[in-house]
Amino acid sequence: MGNNKNIQPRKTLDTIQPYSPGKPIWEVQKELGLDRVIKLASNENPLGPSPKAVAAIQASLTELNRYPDADTTALKEAISSAYDVNPQQVIATNGADELITLVSEAFLEQGDEIIVPSPSFSEYDFGAHIMGATVVPVPFAENFQFDVDAIIAAVTEKTKILYICTPNNPTGTIISQSDIEKVLNAVSDVLIVIDGAYSHFADAPEYTNGIEFVKAEYPVVVLQTFSKIYGIAGIRVGFGIAPESVIQSILKVKEPFNVNALAQAAATAAITDVEHVRASQEANKAGREQLYKAFKELDLNYTESMANFVLVHIGPKGEEIYKALMAKGVIVRYGKTWGLPEYIRVTVGTPEENEFFIEVLTGLLAKQV
Amino acid sequence: MGNNKNIQPRKTLDTIQPYSPGKPIWEVQKELGLDRVIKLASNENPLGPSPKAVAAIQASLTELNRYPDADTTALKEAISSAYDVNPQQVIATNGADELITLVSEAFLEQGDEIIVPSPSFSEYDFGAHIMGATVVPVPFAENFQFDVDAIIAAVTEKTKILYICTPNNPTGTIISQSDIEKVLNAVSDVLIVIDGAYSHFADAPEYTNGIEFVKAEYPVVVLQTFSKIYGIAGIRVGFGIAPESVIQSILKVKEPFNVNALAQAAATAAITDVEHVRASQEANKAGREQLYKAFKELDLNYTESMANFVLVHIGPKGEEIYKALMAKGVIVRYGKTWGLPEYIRVTVGTPEENEFFIEVLTGLLAKQV
Repeated sequence: MGNNKNIQPRKTLDTIQPYSPGKPIWEVQKELGLDRVIKLASNENPLGPSPKAVAAIQASLTELNRYPDADTTALKEAISSAYDVNPQQVIATNGADELITLVSEAFLEQGDEIIVPSPSFSEYDFGAHIMGATVVPVPFAENFQFDVDAIIAAVTEKTKILYICTPNNPTGTIISQSDIEKVLNAVSDVLIVIDGAYSHFADAPEYTNGIEFVKAEYPVVVLQTFSKIYGIAGIRVGFGIAPESVIQSILKVKEPFNVNALAQAAATAAITDVEHVRASQEANKAGREQLYKAFKELDLNYTESMANFVLVHIGPKGEEIYKALMAKGVIVRYGKTWGLPEYIRVTVGTPEENEFFIEVLTGLLAKQV
Repeated sequence: MGNNKNIQPRKTLDTIQPYSPGKPIWEVQKELGLDRVIKLASNENPLGPSPKAVAAIQASLTELNRYPDADTTALKEAISSAYDVNPQQVIATNGADELITLVSEAFLEQGDEIIVPSPSFSEYDFGAHIMGATVVPVPFAENFQFDVDAIIAAVTEKTKILYICTPNNPTGTIISQSDIEKVLNAVSDVLIVIDGAYSHFADAPEYTNGIEFVKAEYPVVVLQTFSKIYGIAGIRVGFGIAPESVIQSILKVKEPFNVNALAQAAATAAITDVEHVRASQEANKAGREQLYKAFKELDLNYTESMANFVLVHIGPKGEEIYKALMAKGVIVRYGKTWGLPEYIRVTVGTPEENEFFIEVLTGLLAKQV
């Protein structure tokens, strides 16, 4: 009989908090015995996947016994063409999550620091903790606005990476192009990751996904995903655009076949699916307005969002309402994860889903009075 | 204008050698202008993907806008049922490659050592190098047989992981169950990863994939893949079975959505596809015999293989023959990667592919005389 009790993991793993994903629909249905369950918890595209992506997958099924193209040649060409950069400035990954891990593995040593305007996407912390680096959170200013001076002031000699999630998850707020420029010119020897997972939903004139800074050879990684506007979260594709030397370093820690063959085919097609992108943008804009209107009528404070979700202030009964929504078949994300126990984050759904959410929320709040 | 030249990757990355995958068929066709190109370089299943897996993918396409199940619930149940373990002893990954990286991230500190009976699969070294650990290769004995005493003798206080690839890639040789037991009882505080990527092709009575050692609570990770016998290398699924405490540590460094939704559906179906597995085993056995016969006729020494590939000794003209095969449309793997410049490794293909390879090889060797 063996004894595996002496096999100890690295000590630094103690700092890692398990990620809590939005509950899957089937799980809530099963647990609660509900017929109708809607998921407005993971910022997925309610219109479904890009039809071009689905067709591309169907055309690739017979070759599944072959390994994927390790260089993701066709996908990198499609991306570089869409962003007007060269393919050597592009890396494709198993979702943007993997890119965050790879950037961490390429650049972070034990004891290094990363800066995260907070609250934000938890995977930045995960990447740092795997490498034994420290997370330095910089709180947002009033109304969850980026506090540029505080971000700059937080940089030390140990700072290796600064994450800027814009539009920021979970607040939906953005940083202006001129403010990014201010940061870039104020700091040196720091890699700036501009996470634009929600960039296609942002229509403010001062917004940028940061690609112009890569073109100007700033130490910037533009991080993007196919999981949001393109609607193919299930197949896992993200990508980064950065100066070639930065990409070369990240490639060193990448497994050869990280992006599966169907993902490569799907994403290569999806990036050209202008019609699906436009429809998704319009539906999202209308959906945000639908939610804003309801929140105003319910007298709830919310943060105007440049993304496909809205952070709304419920008050001291936040957790109760979150749980009651779940019990009625509406899955949203509870703000406690981000230290915001009085808030919930709701993804913009189809008009019918938004309506169902509003109805249920209205009913629950009426009971509370 | 920015300057990204001061952004330095971790020093330990200097030790990482880029992986050289088998060239894709389209690339060789394009480069050489050939009509017929066959790939016998990546140990893929020549019969194609499990039909059940393909059907399961087709049934899952409409939900691609949803994130995958982070817990891979259905897949873990299918695996645990197939191996008679509980789901808490199972982890699913983005190919077995990812599992090797995750095991490295969970257990290896800078300066630790891993032991690899060599030559073997290069991803073990990659995982070690990412973490700043050192690779201690233990050469095979005569005819590429595992040298159990040398393996045991190589263990030091710094040894954290011992990899046993059986059947071994690229030699096709196996270690017996009793020899694994000998190793397990001789060492302590070392995690033993038994890589059974090719286990389904091994039919020797003394062979084991190691699952009984997990059940006996030895510190063993049984590593498996869906890329070989199941024929779904393109969609990327691997898995590990280990004592629960070991799995818990590996889960800590896993990204939440590492296994895509179509991979989960495909693998859950493939593992029950007994017919496809049996047909693949029989075709492989016949194909090995076809190759052996030809090698005997050509007076080439080869290593009897328990896998779906054969390592064959070409001699001092190894590189020349490898390149000439490529120029004629036959992609195999050149042994130099493993320090075996006089060898090539050829994957067992369909009878027609094997025949084409034999014809071309015969022609090339005749010219050499």
